[in-house]
Amino acid sequence: MNTNKKIAVVLSGCGVYDGAEIHEATMTLYAIMKQGSRYDIFAPDIPHYHVVNHITGKEMKESRNVLVESARIARGDIKALKELDMRDFDAVIFPGGFGAAKNLSDFAFKGKDCKVNLEVEKTVKDAFRYGKPIGALCISPAIIAKVFEGAKVTIGKDERTANVINLMGGQHITTNHGEVIIDEKYKTATTPCYMLDATIIDIADGAMNLVKTVHELM
Amino acid sequence: MNTNKKIAVVLSGCGVYDGAEIHEATMTLYAIMKQGSRYDIFAPDIPHYHVVNHITGKEMKESRNVLVESARIARGDIKALKELDMRDFDAVIFPGGFGAAKNLSDFAFKGKDCKVNLEVEKTVKDAFRYGKPIGALCISPAIIAKVFEGAKVTIGKDERTANVINLMGGQHITTNHGEVIIDEKYKTATTPCYMLDATIIDIADGAMNLVKTVHELM
Repeated sequence: MNTNKKIAVVLSGCGVYDGAEIHEATMTLYAIMKQGSRYDIFAPDIPHYHVVNHITGKEMKESRNVLVESARIARGDIKALKELDMRDFDAVIFPGGFGAAKNLSDFAFKGKDCKVNLEVEKTVKDAFRYGKPIGALCISPAIIAKVFEGAKVTIGKDERTANVINLMGGQHITTNHGEVIIDEKYKTATTPCYMLDATIIDIADGAMNLVKTVHELM
Repeated sequence: MNTNKKIAVVLSGCGVYDGAEIHEATMTLYAIMKQGSRYDIFAPDIPHYHVVNHITGKEMKESRNVLVESARIARGDIKALKELDMRDFDAVIFPGGFGAAKNLSDFAFKGKDCKVNLEVEKTVKDAFRYGKPIGALCISPAIIAKVFEGAKVTIGKDERTANVINLMGGQHITTNHGEVIIDEKYKTATTPCYMLDATIIDIADGAMNLVKTVHELM
């Protein structure tokens, strides 16, 4: 298979509790190449909301930059999100991790009243405007639901989060491991990954299914 | 397949230029589960040698802890390396990244005169003593070559690094993507991964082949 599409991947740091979830990000990149396509990686050039010690769960007295930390997953090959022109890409995908709800938006703190980072909002709206599909894993579908009134999305089966998504005007669909929810109008595909109690095999399956669906929506 | 073995994975931070290579670490965990086995993750509780901005390649005026940063890849489920008792495991695997040559050893700076972190050295020697196979990806095989006189290893085809390994008393074997070199005496398996100009698909293949070989050596 060589679909040879070009996909933008947007990261939100490096580490599940304050940035991009590393397994989801890695498996998304892998799935894109397995599909025969290529990727460029982007992240906003903004400070982390905070830095979390991933052993204790406690906040550390440090400040880190989302673009610089995301570069760890990208092995240095990354660009600032403001440089992303969706006309140059066939799709955009957002892996999950709390970074999506703390750095790309403030969904983790404000819930239904959250704001989405303006560059992220522009990316998602441009993708829709130019007819390019949008993929989102884990908690990132909350961003889709915030930007697109009435969008059908999934974050798995966490009722509290699902309710907040519905309160924002989204339509949450309950899913299990590896399942993908499509919104035909907005050309979005979402999958729960680590929003469920998952193993790394579930994450690989979820990323593969999501990336395949994103290609089918092109 | 359900081999149901228990494998210790030793990380060296989080990010190719100052820690564990993220794709290699993730694909190693994935390969272990695909093989039907389980893993526990460990890292030494020591300071990073330094912190590198992964976009510019320049050193940052920060200090980070190898165990705390490795926890980002492990999603918090990690133990200090000094707690690892090789009698409780069927094998140990070291993903690559400069962390193996900067934090787990000083191979990146001292070459053939490098020293290996004492907990890492104990882990590797205990594995041999108890007849448990050792896997190493990317630059981590340099640690094997330093600890085990005459061990056959590969880091791919970088001549300078291969020469240093031979000067340390190792036997370097040139390899290409996904190939695994076995040393029967020491029960080690090594593969080049990002020591070659590789894609993430090559890394997945290398990790899968290495983990399969490690199981065969049990």
